[in-house]
Amino acid sequence: MTMQNTTTAAQAPVVPARGRLRPLGQREVRITGGFWGDRQSVNGSATLEHIQSRLESEGWLGNFDRAAAGTLPEGRRGREFADSEVYKYLEALAWEIGRTDDPALETRLRAVVARVAAAQEPDGYLNTNFGRPGQADRWSNLEWGHELYCLGHLFQAAAARERTRPGSDDGLLGIAIRAADLVCAEFGADGRDGICGHAEVEVGLAELSRVTGDPRYLEQARLFVERHGHGTLRDIEWGRSYFQDDVPVRDAVALRGHAVRANYLASGAADVAVDTGDDELLGALRRQWERTVARRTYVTGGQGSHHQDEAFGEDWELPADRAYSETCAGVGSIMFSWRLLLAGGDPRQADLIERTLYNVVATSPAPDGRAFFYANTLHQRVPGSPADRDATSPRASSSLRAPWFEVSCCPPNVARTFASLDAYVATADDDGVQLHQYAPASVRTTLADGRVVAFDVETDYPASGAIRVVSRGDAAAPWTLSLRVPAWASGARVRVTAAGGDVDEREAAPGTVEVRRAFRDGDVVELVLPMAPRLTAPDDRIDAVRGCVAVERGPEVLALESVDAGADVSTLALAPGSVPAERDGRVWIEVIDRATADAGWPYGPTGETARPPASRAVPLVAYHAWAQRGPSTMRVWIPAAT
Amino acid sequence: MTMQNTTTAAQAPVVPARGRLRPLGQREVRITGGFWGDRQSVNGSATLEHIQSRLESEGWLGNFDRAAAGTLPEGRRGREFADSEVYKYLEALAWEIGRTDDPALETRLRAVVARVAAAQEPDGYLNTNFGRPGQADRWSNLEWGHELYCLGHLFQAAAARERTRPGSDDGLLGIAIRAADLVCAEFGADGRDGICGHAEVEVGLAELSRVTGDPRYLEQARLFVERHGHGTLRDIEWGRSYFQDDVPVRDAVALRGHAVRANYLASGAADVAVDTGDDELLGALRRQWERTVARRTYVTGGQGSHHQDEAFGEDWELPADRAYSETCAGVGSIMFSWRLLLAGGDPRQADLIERTLYNVVATSPAPDGRAFFYANTLHQRVPGSPADRDATSPRASSSLRAPWFEVSCCPPNVARTFASLDAYVATADDDGVQLHQYAPASVRTTLADGRVVAFDVETDYPASGAIRVVSRGDAAAPWTLSLRVPAWASGARVRVTAAGGDVDEREAAPGTVEVRRAFRDGDVVELVLPMAPRLTAPDDRIDAVRGCVAVERGPEVLALESVDAGADVSTLALAPGSVPAERDGRVWIEVIDRATADAGWPYGPTGETARPPASRAVPLVAYHAWAQRGPSTMRVWIPAAT
Repeated sequence: MTMQNTTTAAQAPVVPARGRLRPLGQREVRITGGFWGDRQSVNGSATLEHIQSRLESEGWLGNFDRAAAGTLPEGRRGREFADSEVYKYLEALAWEIGRTDDPALETRLRAVVARVAAAQEPDGYLNTNFGRPGQADRWSNLEWGHELYCLGHLFQAAAARERTRPGSDDGLLGIAIRAADLVCAEFGADGRDGICGHAEVEVGLAELSRVTGDPRYLEQARLFVERHGHGTLRDIEWGRSYFQDDVPVRDAVALRGHAVRANYLASGAADVAVDTGDDELLGALRRQWERTVARRTYVTGGQGSHHQDEAFGEDWELPADRAYSETCAGVGSIMFSWRLLLAGGDPRQADLIERTLYNVVATSPAPDGRAFFYANTLHQRVPGSPADRDATSPRASSSLRAPWFEVSCCPPNVARTFASLDAYVATADDDGVQLHQYAPASVRTTLADGRVVAFDVETDYPASGAIRVVSRGDAAAPWTLSLRVPAWASGARVRVTAAGGDVDEREAAPGTVEVRRAFRDGDVVELVLPMAPRLTAPDDRIDAVRGCVAVERGPEVLALESVDAGADVSTLALAPGSVPAERDGRVWIEVIDRATADAGWPYGPTGETARPPASRAVPLVAYHAWAQRGPSTMRVWIPAAT
Repeated sequence: MTMQNTTTAAQAPVVPARGRLRPLGQREVRITGGFWGDRQSVNGSATLEHIQSRLESEGWLGNFDRAAAGTLPEGRRGREFADSEVYKYLEALAWEIGRTDDPALETRLRAVVARVAAAQEPDGYLNTNFGRPGQADRWSNLEWGHELYCLGHLFQAAAARERTRPGSDDGLLGIAIRAADLVCAEFGADGRDGICGHAEVEVGLAELSRVTGDPRYLEQARLFVERHGHGTLRDIEWGRSYFQDDVPVRDAVALRGHAVRANYLASGAADVAVDTGDDELLGALRRQWERTVARRTYVTGGQGSHHQDEAFGEDWELPADRAYSETCAGVGSIMFSWRLLLAGGDPRQADLIERTLYNVVATSPAPDGRAFFYANTLHQRVPGSPADRDATSPRASSSLRAPWFEVSCCPPNVARTFASLDAYVATADDDGVQLHQYAPASVRTTLADGRVVAFDVETDYPASGAIRVVSRGDAAAPWTLSLRVPAWASGARVRVTAAGGDVDEREAAPGTVEVRRAFRDGDVVELVLPMAPRLTAPDDRIDAVRGCVAVERGPEVLALESVDAGADVSTLALAPGSVPAERDGRVWIEVIDRATADAGWPYGPTGETARPPASRAVPLVAYHAWAQRGPSTMRVWIPAAT
């Protein structure tokens, strides 16, 4: 691990004190269109306004006004963590303002910050649900109260704002600092031996430490991380693994318990490990990431198998049915993977980020940006009825996207991820720039020694697999362009076409391909990823989808949806020997329909095989685009007829 | 459907006003040993005392004393439905006294009844959790309050007592009548348009109507049944299907929602349909039973796929992982099937009862009768740690049996089922007796026209498949002995050996085999069921166990347990061509071990097959006998190597 010479802090969500790769923020990377640019546009033009409108109509913003007016607890609305949605929204606004410089959003952010500021107590305490006469005491319910969790999101919002508008006079950073000082006083080494039942304050404190330079916040984050796993919280029905208080972070084997909590804690622990130079902790987190990816992650990148406790299942327990795969767990997984990627540069972490972005985070919002999946099942058995677009849904609904939830973490979590997405595209090290995600983009940065790097990315990926990197300006000295070659992309090729016409082409094995040269204006590096649809089989130990295949194309997992199949998907199977093929811009497979009458008792002697019926071709849909054409049934894992 | 001439009410849990078959109660059928006799002994000698002890130590019996002393709500303990466990226990005591005439149990029952009686309000209201200053108002929370549910269990207990000790002066029937009169006044046709969020009062009222002859209780049961499905209750996160308030009972397609609630409601609806002659309703219930058995039932007979809401899944959603298969849902399924069997005589209902008794109800208790499974998973991935035998467990624990639960319906539900099990063995119709379950037993009854039927059953079933029915005494006239041939018993044979030595043997196809003759003392009818272990495959639409087989032997589902396999079961697969075989009193299969190193990302290209490793023989264990030798992993569905 080498020290980074970060002359100016990146306009990015995570800016570690050290690490193999240095993040490039919104000032240095700009997504200019394409798959992700479109989503950023919808996010900025529709989702942010939708969230503001719901925060008002649900009364969650109004809670702050009631706090300021001194009338709480009367009329307080929403769950105990409702404050946090306001903070996630503020973070999303901060990134969107950084991205677009929209004055209307700037006005909106300042108005929200003013309402939050008015609710803060003189000693820095800030929460609308605790501490007043008629409310429970401050910090009296660390298991479920979410007070520190809410503050963690406040700190992330303040860090986002400070990175995008350093020194702004809106007051957000001051609010965060006053609250963080109180947290340090209350929960410091000499204070309460407590942690929050929902990790998040750790990552918030680490980021606040980075933007303020105050080491106390990092130390407080470290204390919170280390206190996990010692039975610090009271036990609950699902066991202390639910909030990762069963095993110390550095001793754990895999992520476990509530999947959002687990990823947020791992992210905060990674921040602490990197900034304090705790390589033992960082190594433990890497091993947990490996094990979690190998045994507890859906093919979509989704994590969390249980509805009941929104938790990881045991190893290999990955049911397609009722896969919980919470949108926010996807966001948390990206947070964790990104931190490990910055620390160590392992391209597999960028692979998982890509997979999760396309197949979890992008699956959540409807095309109009005003309805969301909270959970992302891999098998929908019942079509459901059209959602009432004005209703607030129970959180675990998975048949149709809903505009809002009683527990509504997903919409603002998606919003802050999309608004900051430019910062996940590329990084730099001492000798060049690494492209991790492929989107039309412009990249302009200066390496530590002053070498200027400037290029544009031209691509319609993932529609096609051609990614063109066009150098802008003549470089004074050689530098290295690194391109990620996804693990699925066997047979990828890279071709360098010099502005002068020379061509050099070679195979690019999965992992990373590097091109080092003194780039001239107009030099083109083209990476061509093989985009033929492919059949994917699960590890034999994933019991729930044995005998099934998934179809993938590039980074996208595909799905079989009833509106395309012309039939319920429950009786369809991949015809023997069928190979997916592209035609008319879609991927088709041959299926047979094994519909039969009920046998009465559905278990019987083995060995009865009927002659398979005739097959027919059906088109698939990108998983992230399912459920956009009315109620339907859907499956990602398709039985393979034998 | 023919009217039954029931001269004396059977000493049995369900005595309908009419139906194809007449129940034979404890006076007429006595289990004399064997598999079920042993369990009845443990139940009587250990489980009942264990339950009494826990009801005292948990304070659930003490709640009644506090109610009588007027000190509630102070010190009330347990959940809102704690009263019901006392009533289920009373029902179990009543049946056990009927079975054994144990004076110590009689004393115990009277003492408990006296404590319950002292808690009843002057107007008949009886519940320790509602209606007093400092408690919620009576009937103010029908969704979750369980007041009527508790009374339903009181009514079932009173019916059990009246059938086993008619006219007893213990006072239990009077308590029930006073409470039922209040229910009728409160919820009658002119009263509150309400139902209970947990069905049970329907079946209790129907039974109370039968023992008292008071038609008002049947009418009240009918009203409660009919009020389901009209949005009578407030909506909840999981939807009104949770308490079957989504669709009227007569319009429903299958059981759905909370699996215990669903089966209790269906049982009460069947009682109402039969006693009021509502054949349309009865037909609807039969169709729901068919559909539920065909699409929503585990191979063990277990029902309920979800941990979150303890509910049925959608059609074909039957994950082995975390199969909830609550013990009480098994009890409820037996209640429902038994009522349909009495009404229509379909032997498939007796098949399901047998399967559920062996593989759900018998699986719950430990051999010592003092620890229980609440849920009955079909796949245990993690061994768990040895249970603390004194601790009260969270209810959904499925790795090790626990002595008691916060929601402790299962122990007394198992107890009342075992104590009344004699009454599920045989029935009568106008021309004879039907044997539904096979156990060593003596059967003595008189048919409607006065013909005397007397025989003993000699068998060590399910150890072997030979069931000998030995006639006792010379019958004055011919009568028909009907024997159930389970659906799995292809190739069964029946042999009649006259006392004089004549032998008549023939094949007995699955369903029912009848022997009609003027039985002489010593005549033997022997049914021989094929007990060779067999491989069973699931319907292709049960996604979660595709590519797997189960092994069954007679009525018992077998399981592969790590303590036998000498390895964790997650990597074992049935060797190609392996056929289960009996040796040394156990069933063995050949398995191969497919243990491999993690691939990093567990999804990859199809078509990679390695040469299978060498196979080895491992013994299986009866599913009901798993987890009796320390922590283990286990699976019922075994992957079939290809």
